[in-house]
Amino acid sequence: MNPTVRVTVLPEEKEIFVIPGTSILEAAASANIVMEAPCGGKGLCGKCKIKIIEGQMSASPTEEKVLGKEAVSSGFRMSCQSKINSDCKILIPAQTRLSAQKILTLGIEGEKQIHPSVWKKYTELSPATLDNQISDLDLIRKNVGEKFCVDIYILRKIRNFLKKQDYKCTCVFSDGELINLEPGDTTGINYGVAFDIGTSTVVSALLDANTGKEIALTARMNPQAIYGDDVVSRIQFIINNKDGLERLHLSIIGTMNEMIQEMASSAGISVEQIYKIVLCGNSTMQHIVLKISPEGLGFVPFSLVFREGTDVKAKKLGLQISPNGTVCVFPNIGGFVGGDTVSVILSTRQHESEKIRLSVDIGTNGEIVLGNRKRLISASTAAGPAFEGARISQGMRASAGAIEKVIFAEDVLVNTIANQPPCGICGSGLIDAVAEMVRTGVIDKTGRIQSPDVLKGKIPEKIAERIISSKKGFDFRLVNAENTRAGHPVYITQKDIRELQLGKAAIFAGIKILEKQYGITDEDISEVFLAGGFGNFIRRSNAKRIGLIPDIASERIRFVGNAALSGARLLLLSRKLHGVVEDISTETEYIELSVSRDFQDKFADAMLFSAC
Amino acid sequence: MNPTVRVTVLPEEKEIFVIPGTSILEAAASANIVMEAPCGGKGLCGKCKIKIIEGQMSASPTEEKVLGKEAVSSGFRMSCQSKINSDCKILIPAQTRLSAQKILTLGIEGEKQIHPSVWKKYTELSPATLDNQISDLDLIRKNVGEKFCVDIYILRKIRNFLKKQDYKCTCVFSDGELINLEPGDTTGINYGVAFDIGTSTVVSALLDANTGKEIALTARMNPQAIYGDDVVSRIQFIINNKDGLERLHLSIIGTMNEMIQEMASSAGISVEQIYKIVLCGNSTMQHIVLKISPEGLGFVPFSLVFREGTDVKAKKLGLQISPNGTVCVFPNIGGFVGGDTVSVILSTRQHESEKIRLSVDIGTNGEIVLGNRKRLISASTAAGPAFEGARISQGMRASAGAIEKVIFAEDVLVNTIANQPPCGICGSGLIDAVAEMVRTGVIDKTGRIQSPDVLKGKIPEKIAERIISSKKGFDFRLVNAENTRAGHPVYITQKDIRELQLGKAAIFAGIKILEKQYGITDEDISEVFLAGGFGNFIRRSNAKRIGLIPDIASERIRFVGNAALSGARLLLLSRKLHGVVEDISTETEYIELSVSRDFQDKFADAMLFSAC
Repeated sequence: MNPTVRVTVLPEEKEIFVIPGTSILEAAASANIVMEAPCGGKGLCGKCKIKIIEGQMSASPTEEKVLGKEAVSSGFRMSCQSKINSDCKILIPAQTRLSAQKILTLGIEGEKQIHPSVWKKYTELSPATLDNQISDLDLIRKNVGEKFCVDIYILRKIRNFLKKQDYKCTCVFSDGELINLEPGDTTGINYGVAFDIGTSTVVSALLDANTGKEIALTARMNPQAIYGDDVVSRIQFIINNKDGLERLHLSIIGTMNEMIQEMASSAGISVEQIYKIVLCGNSTMQHIVLKISPEGLGFVPFSLVFREGTDVKAKKLGLQISPNGTVCVFPNIGGFVGGDTVSVILSTRQHESEKIRLSVDIGTNGEIVLGNRKRLISASTAAGPAFEGARISQGMRASAGAIEKVIFAEDVLVNTIANQPPCGICGSGLIDAVAEMVRTGVIDKTGRIQSPDVLKGKIPEKIAERIISSKKGFDFRLVNAENTRAGHPVYITQKDIRELQLGKAAIFAGIKILEKQYGITDEDISEVFLAGGFGNFIRRSNAKRIGLIPDIASERIRFVGNAALSGARLLLLSRKLHGVVEDISTETEYIELSVSRDFQDKFADAMLFSAC
Repeated sequence: MNPTVRVTVLPEEKEIFVIPGTSILEAAASANIVMEAPCGGKGLCGKCKIKIIEGQMSASPTEEKVLGKEAVSSGFRMSCQSKINSDCKILIPAQTRLSAQKILTLGIEGEKQIHPSVWKKYTELSPATLDNQISDLDLIRKNVGEKFCVDIYILRKIRNFLKKQDYKCTCVFSDGELINLEPGDTTGINYGVAFDIGTSTVVSALLDANTGKEIALTARMNPQAIYGDDVVSRIQFIINNKDGLERLHLSIIGTMNEMIQEMASSAGISVEQIYKIVLCGNSTMQHIVLKISPEGLGFVPFSLVFREGTDVKAKKLGLQISPNGTVCVFPNIGGFVGGDTVSVILSTRQHESEKIRLSVDIGTNGEIVLGNRKRLISASTAAGPAFEGARISQGMRASAGAIEKVIFAEDVLVNTIANQPPCGICGSGLIDAVAEMVRTGVIDKTGRIQSPDVLKGKIPEKIAERIISSKKGFDFRLVNAENTRAGHPVYITQKDIRELQLGKAAIFAGIKILEKQYGITDEDISEVFLAGGFGNFIRRSNAKRIGLIPDIASERIRFVGNAALSGARLLLLSRKLHGVVEDISTETEYIELSVSRDFQDKFADAMLFSAC
């Protein structure tokens, strides 16, 4: 395998491994850290400043100019400018990070940033006396001084609990309801879980809801994949099988419970200490999680059972958190555009932007949002699961051992997540690999892998040797057998390239239709947000080269990571955002692409690699 | 058995049997009809006007004066003046009845009288189209035009239901929640059940919530009696047995389900068509129904777990009505004074009265409320179950065959409910019997039954013969063996008289303590409301003779029947009263009698029959 260098990110002491020459910005993204880069990485603003703690890194004149010579000599660098060539330790300060909490802070200026929907109050009560024959519940009401409702299950335990705790306890409230009583003062403890339920990938974060701090993060493949790769095949499964909805529902609930349990264990807490789950997903996923049939999406006119945001007790869904905990599901927009898109809009603040922006959330469905605070339009395209590593011969989720970066030099250089021996390829690796194949002419405009004979002399010999004849033309050996975990080579097949073509064409065509609907062209778009959990970083040039997104200047393209999960975190941390997401949901227009003749035409055009 | 006459009450065609000489007012009460009598039965107002349809009834000069000669010759009579001496058919017009609905009408003048908390709306929806990809729930929202929340169980069924019903259905709402969808237009059907859960007796009415009309009425002994006659012994049972609360809870829920099922069957409806139960009871009963331990009432300071009114899904209590139906439990006042007292205040409108009134709700606990709109004070006294026929050797609930009226003439005359052969004695019969024994000297001031030898020549021989020697003095044979259903005589024992003495003394002493607390005497009380389900009618003179209530002029005493059940009906019919009952609950003061030395003294005094 090609050499990599180790980067230790402080203060979290996270270790990542990158190909030498990788920018700090990109390295940080590999560590799941999305950084401030208001100038789009052009080296103008210096907001992406970090500090070298150990190791050497040369500074460019730009950095000296922007940060000042003194800062540079103290070890400060700009993430967009400096490249990592040897092992190092770097500190990424809080102000450089584009965290959920910071977005929130920006959002509600002058107010306390965090208003979790679950809040606690410690109370020391004076029990009733003959002179003051107050009921236990009224005792609490008087002490709390805010209106709340209370479930019978809590009423049933109040008396014994208060007696046992000598009338000192912490009251736990959620959305105007007293949901639990805890012994002693537990106001400092407040856990919540954010979920992004994708068609192929499920990602979840355990947060301290008092501070917004991330305590654990985990991801899994969506186990529903055995019932179909995409939402359409799962909807068909539900229509065709009497217990289909039940089976899909139970499989995702089971996985969510495993993920919650895993994060709780790693954080050393009990799942009963978690009172809130905030969840977003596409509209099909959101219906299935609630065990509401999405079969309306199986036929024209693709209508939903519910659009609005929905709160439901976790136990009604079989989700194992506190017995009285709640699940908050994002509102949908319409058709196939669900709560995950609302969540992306919320976290990227597209609904507040003066300038016109384009957001593309790339998953099994590609959700596209175009517009600004005056008008937002959205669409969903069936990109297929290629970007999440599914339906790709050796595809995998963006987890340890996944090839996430590919460079064609004299030979093929690859980088894997966590620097593990390669065992497959994830979305960003696939984009890189295909982009490099396009750039070097290994594949032609139509996506066909060329015969090594044709390429002789035009590409390095070591690369040409990787083109292998197969039944349907040629495949490409990305990693040799001796360098992989399993001892088998990693291939990109002709079919894999076709899958990628279908996906990128769908997204590109979707963008074009939205531009047309909006009455604008690429030039009118001030900024592009690329979101998705398909890999840690998409190289903007490669995304453009394969024709995933229009040819917009790189400095206007930002990779915002898993923006859907970020939005779910935000909602978990601020009950004040409920109205905002409801507004986004009702005010964003939905454009149905599946019945559009125009879309079919644009899709056919976009199948080609025009950059060749 | 002594002769009775048959009275058929129209329009309901209800048959009752009364002793000749019974006033129409009293006969109507036997048919559960409480009549208007604003003048207190003094023959001044004519509001108690009825019409004779069949049979003869002489008219008094008073009636001719008040109603007019013409009306009298057309068959109109005043219920308080005319007496029934032969079989007859009478029409009691709606305006003469003091119905729950009328109280409500009086209460909310100028507004529509009935605002049931369950309401329906028939909708014919236009399903989503490609041009209007609206969700099913939003379709309903748009059509209904009012805000509501919705449970996940309903969300799960919306799609299939709407499809099957061709998007025409009736939406059922309760307290701001969409609780069901029904096929077709069912807006004309709306059933609710009112319950008064007494310590000894449970009474329930099935109502048409759209019209307020009573569809069925039923009563049972409280099955919890096997765990103790009164609330204190049941609380002890709960404290002493780990599963005590569970057992008491399940036993009352089982009986409630039987009663609901019985009423539904008799009305030819399904229990699933019932969406609402409104329930009142004393604070112990209300805690047990909700499976909340009342053990706080077992010790000083007698505090409750909850005071406020509580809504809970029927299924959480195991009550079998519509799966999404709700149970509304009245707020308590404090200590032993519960929702039934709030309900009595509501239905008698004591909280709105300018003049000072006294309400006495006689059951196993006697609940007393004194005051007017400016100040209301309340207390509960342990009257024991004698007034409901329990703990009396041959006592029974006021149901068919119960002796409900007793007159001592040359011999003893008795009247039973439904004119059945006597099988026991109910509360009102016991009061009558003891009052007559006091009047004729059969018992002395201390309550002791005198020897027939002592009474020889002072009372009719046939009555003297009924005094029988027993182990502990004497018993009194009220009905001879040949006249009873079982062929055994009905006795009133010396012990029965002691039970009655304990009960009446507790209530009388309670009234005296409240008068003292309020700083008034009997003379300041403008009106006395006697409530209870212990028999259909209490003769005011007899209630005063035995010393159950103070010696207040009879025209100032009104018998209001089961006023607690009436209040529950009112709340079932008007969601606007929820705030009113909450205000009554918080603003009525509670006086704890059980620790009052003064009460003990007054109680001891009140044991005597002072009228002798």
